[in-house]
Amino acid sequence: MDRVPAVSTAFASDNAAPAHPKALDAILAVNDGTTPSYGDDPITERAAERIRETFDCPNGDVLFAFTGTGANIIALTAAVRPWHEILCSDIAHSLLDEAGGPVLVSGASLVALPSDDGIIDRTLLDRRVTRRGDVHHSQPRIVTITQSTENGRVWQTEAIAEFVDHAHELDLLVHVDGSRVANAIAALDVPPAQAVGDADIVTIGGTKNGMLFGDAILVRRPEHFAGIEFVQKQIGHLASKHRYVSAQFDAMLADGEWLEAAAHANAMATRLSSGMTALGLHLSSPTEANEVFVDLTPEALIAVRQQFAVHAPDPHKPAVRFVCSWATTDDDVDAALRALAQQ
Amino acid sequence: MDRVPAVSTAFASDNAAPAHPKALDAILAVNDGTTPSYGDDPITERAAERIRETFDCPNGDVLFAFTGTGANIIALTAAVRPWHEILCSDIAHSLLDEAGGPVLVSGASLVALPSDDGIIDRTLLDRRVTRRGDVHHSQPRIVTITQSTENGRVWQTEAIAEFVDHAHELDLLVHVDGSRVANAIAALDVPPAQAVGDADIVTIGGTKNGMLFGDAILVRRPEHFAGIEFVQKQIGHLASKHRYVSAQFDAMLADGEWLEAAAHANAMATRLSSGMTALGLHLSSPTEANEVFVDLTPEALIAVRQQFAVHAPDPHKPAVRFVCSWATTDDDVDAALRALAQQ
Amino acid sequence: MDRVPAVSTAFASDNAAPAHPKALDAILAVNDGTTPSYGDDPITERAAERIRETFDCPNGDVLFAFTGTGANIIALTAAVRPWHEILCSDIAHSLLDEAGGPVLVSGASLVALPSDDGIIDRTLLDRRVTRRGDVHHSQPRIVTITQSTENGRVWQTEAIAEFVDHAHELDLLVHVDGSRVANAIAALDVPPAQAVGDADIVTIGGTKNGMLFGDAILVRRPEHFAGIEFVQKQIGHLASKHRYVSAQFDAMLADGEWLEAAAHANAMATRLSSGMTALGLHLSSPTEANEVFVDLTPEALIAVRQQFAVHAPDPHKPAVRFVCSWATTDDDVDAALRALAQQ
Amino acid sequence: MDRVPAVSTAFASDNAAPAHPKALDAILAVNDGTTPSYGDDPITERAAERIRETFDCPNGDVLFAFTGTGANIIALTAAVRPWHEILCSDIAHSLLDEAGGPVLVSGASLVALPSDDGIIDRTLLDRRVTRRGDVHHSQPRIVTITQSTENGRVWQTEAIAEFVDHAHELDLLVHVDGSRVANAIAALDVPPAQAVGDADIVTIGGTKNGMLFGDAILVRRPEHFAGIEFVQKQIGHLASKHRYVSAQFDAMLADGEWLEAAAHANAMATRLSSGMTALGLHLSSPTEANEVFVDLTPEALIAVRQQFAVHAPDPHKPAVRFVCSWATTDDDVDAALRALAQQ
Repeated sequence: MDRVPAVSTAFASDNAAPAHPKALDAILAVNDGTTPSYGDDPITERAAERIRETFDCPNGDVLFAFTGTGANIIALTAAVRPWHEILCSDIAHSLLDEAGGPVLVSGASLVALPSDDGIIDRTLLDRRVTRRGDVHHSQPRIVTITQSTENGRVWQTEAIAEFVDHAHELDLLVHVDGSRVANAIAALDVPPAQAVGDADIVTIGGTKNGMLFGDAILVRRPEHFAGIEFVQKQIGHLASKHRYVSAQFDAMLADGEWLEAAAHANAMATRLSSGMTALGLHLSSPTEANEVFVDLTPEALIAVRQQFAVHAPDPHKPAVRFVCSWATTDDDVDAALRALAQQ
Repeated sequence: MDRVPAVSTAFASDNAAPAHPKALDAILAVNDGTTPSYGDDPITERAAERIRETFDCPNGDVLFAFTGTGANIIALTAAVRPWHEILCSDIAHSLLDEAGGPVLVSGASLVALPSDDGIIDRTLLDRRVTRRGDVHHSQPRIVTITQSTENGRVWQTEAIAEFVDHAHELDLLVHVDGSRVANAIAALDVPPAQAVGDADIVTIGGTKNGMLFGDAILVRRPEHFAGIEFVQKQIGHLASKHRYVSAQFDAMLADGEWLEAAAHANAMATRLSSGMTALGLHLSSPTEANEVFVDLTPEALIAVRQQFAVHAPDPHKPAVRFVCSWATTDDDVDAALRALAQQ
Repeated sequence: MDRVPAVSTAFASDNAAPAHPKALDAILAVNDGTTPSYGDDPITERAAERIRETFDCPNGDVLFAFTGTGANIIALTAAVRPWHEILCSDIAHSLLDEAGGPVLVSGASLVALPSDDGIIDRTLLDRRVTRRGDVHHSQPRIVTITQSTENGRVWQTEAIAEFVDHAHELDLLVHVDGSRVANAIAALDVPPAQAVGDADIVTIGGTKNGMLFGDAILVRRPEHFAGIEFVQKQIGHLASKHRYVSAQFDAMLADGEWLEAAAHANAMATRLSSGMTALGLHLSSPTEANEVFVDLTPEALIAVRQQFAVHAPDPHKPAVRFVCSWATTDDDVDAALRALAQQ
Repeated sequence: MDRVPAVSTAFASDNAAPAHPKALDAILAVNDGTTPSYGDDPITERAAERIRETFDCPNGDVLFAFTGTGANIIALTAAVRPWHEILCSDIAHSLLDEAGGPVLVSGASLVALPSDDGIIDRTLLDRRVTRRGDVHHSQPRIVTITQSTENGRVWQTEAIAEFVDHAHELDLLVHVDGSRVANAIAALDVPPAQAVGDADIVTIGGTKNGMLFGDAILVRRPEHFAGIEFVQKQIGHLASKHRYVSAQFDAMLADGEWLEAAAHANAMATRLSSGMTALGLHLSSPTEANEVFVDLTPEALIAVRQQFAVHAPDPHKPAVRFVCSWATTDDDVDAALRALAQQ
């Protein structure tokens, strides 16, 4: 067989990136002697406290999961009984990219609402929150939104605040899927708590932010999520050697490295996006965080894929995704733009 | 507050241990540049091949999970429909220490069989495999056994072979929970495949063996576990930055380090166990792998716990557990024996 | 308390109707001595054979459930694993009026497709059947359609045949929710099998057709629904005194009474519908079976409800439902028209 | 084929019996005109009130299900979250004869306790209610007991009162599976409430008592079973033509017919049991309600089965079951005794 030139995964996903040195160093630093397992260790306590402080939530509970999918399932399952509904956007990761896991584990129904790249008009909630108490119909209980969204959009602080408040008025809980919340916070340049409104539970992505693995769950209103630690265990996400996940969060959050990493990813996305526009390409969605969506013809997509692995989320649409990470370089961006210029 | 003397976690569990240098080095070695995520990378392919070779199973499928609980749930769920039964021993981790996760995710019933420290007499299967085709009764489909067992016992090669063959005669599949399978293989000193009989699916513990995290699943008869990769995803155990779990397995298995680590843990357990016997203490179970169970009076337990965190699995029994790991030292053992000698 | 004039339930639903004399007589006729329970009786065998003959399906399996919801759950659950998707229309009973039961019991996701009163354009299936084999995404496995639909529409024979065949081309199974299939067959005036196309499994409504209780399930391709009898038992729908459900089906189908009952209901609906049109009212949906949907202003709805209990399925739409049954009379219809004429 | 002499089902089960005239008449009496469906009818309200009065529980909620399995699943599922445990006896119908339905629907684990024919020593609860709050272990939440038991034993009033109170002390809820509670009440000859102790929820068997179908659920402490009406709907047990189940309960309870029917069944069992003893046969269990268990040799069982369909619940034990019902006659009993005398 002829030698096939390597295809770059530089823009395949932010989880194609290697681990951030800060995260790796944190692991090395705690690899000393035995410690209590399952989170009963001082490193985990410190990381939890760091997360509470970062999100200005002194009375919150903090848990960790290995993946964003795991974190979402844990957060949503703890909120519902099987006759409840979980509302989400029509492009939600929990709807489209978790293989039905939240439905299987919670037993509840997942109901998609139309959205603008994952941003949901809050008045749509009124339309769906009907038939309260009607025993024939599953009952809306929680709405999950993603910040930044799966299409790389950022909920503005006022918009998310109003959405969450309106959901609360409708007696809905709110979950923020924050697998890329750092990118949103960096883009908004506000205190973290403002980027997630008054949400009742927030998952905080570590993996896409630069860690080897790990997402955190901040339970801001524990009274609505009783038993959540059992759900975490029931799907095998209570880490035994827990320090290795905690230490990464502690280190990345300690001096703002997580937001610097996110800001860098965002900046690379802006550079790429601007370059695409300069090439006359049409962006499928505005670039607001670290993901760029650009419309490509089928032929252009084939050509680009000879050099770069990129994701085309919907075979019926021309949108092609390029994701930047903490590790993306100017050279990576320029190489991608060169590849696109050849089309 | 007065300074409380630190309590040692040296024997709390093998997952209280730090990461083995080989595992950590492997992570550092692959932390270079972007790679395809979710296991589509060459490191994962190499690790899978290594596991197939190690267990002499060229046509098996290999998946990874973050934890042993996750691996068990994935293996068992893929095997069953909700009207099936999963048979297990009365001390099985999947029964007692996974918070009901296998039941929740699979929808199937978990049925406990009496055992001798986790070793099940194969004739007990005949007693339970009845009412085949009776629509009123859930149908036995798979039996899960643990090697080495939760009480530190090792299935001898002939015993496990006969057990598995008998289960097959009864039209049962067999799962081996191998969260400590390395300790069993090291104790038996046989090729790995002989330590698990003709089991249809085997989970292979990485965490307790010395890794930071990670257990593997070897599907030896994929035709009985169709869709298993979806279950893995549905509970959030498909790692995105997959190389970090794969690399550890690849490195630990490459030159037998995993068995050396296990043999060391076993040797430390033997040393501890012998010391206890010399002190006149009664072992609750024979010491055959890396766990020591010793009967202690309530008073002695309280006293020991001032120096060592140890697990007493059943409040109605005097058995107290000491677990050794790759990192346990002669000094650790001697300190424990000194603490016991004072009682 | 003042005497409140009784509100008529004549049009509330076809399950507000009493039992058809034929069904009641059948029960009385078999109430003699002991018989084997759980369906191992000759009456059940005869009813099953009757259903097989009626639907021209000599090799089908027949089961019974107490309700349409039960029958739907059994049919759909047997078809799927938890990582599968069940496709349905946006007004499907299984989606909106079974409190999430099919999702809870099957573990699978229910995905709504846009429809014209429950009639789904078959090309929409192509749009949804994507990402085959993609482990991140739940996999479409079965589509459920309703004949006649929840909005009183009837799939024409050619349309349903083409829809089912197209679903099969896409490797989807097809379930027909036939809680009102008799009304569709009577409206189409074709052999029953033609009213459901080549569907793989059909539920056949008894309750709405005139029985006291009971829906049947005809499994036309048993190889795709292995274990369905366990699901029936697992949700408590295997009747112990089984003859009472079987006898009703046997009697109603024996000499075509079920279709006469349905034809009568359809005729009453046509009479009502024509009368409404003559009054200048606008029908929300064409009247094709035994349900009439008419647009009423909020004021008119309030006024009508002082005389008739009627269902307004969506608070955001003006459509109000009037359902006719085997027991509806010309007088009932004329009374309803008089009430509407007063608005 | 030669003519096979009919095998009598007189003792196969109490659900092999026909419907009691009182139940049938009640159905005929309410089969008049349309009524609100799904239980919003005056007949249902009257039946619910009758049940509340009968069990001296003025503030209880009452629901109905079609079968005892359905009723058990509804009661147990409403009580638990998926990380809970349901404790039961080792011969519980919910454990052995509901095909795993309670586990599937609730997601919780079912844990068997040793028993004396279904009577559980209350001190065994202490043994099982451990590891409270331990996130690795599922949490006991409710215990279900059966009155009269699956082996035909009756909990004495003091014994059941003490058992329930002790369970409450351990922070467990208590469910009484009363599919044959009428037989227990008749045998004890006490007010119904005394036969079930202070249980939190009671299912009341109608089918085995003489109805065509139907079991009731009395929720005595509704605060612990929030959402139970959704569970009822989610498994398809909310009857649409609800009057037909309600009317039977109303009529059978109105003037004590349900207890007369049960007392007759008990008396027939006593007659049969005494006759067996006189024949020198050994009773497997004492006869305390309407079921007789007698030890038969395999040869005797084969011979008896040529005349009578009887159930041998455990292939490893000699116990053979004869069940009497409201419809059993002296002649039936004598014929059975003649058949046995021939062995």
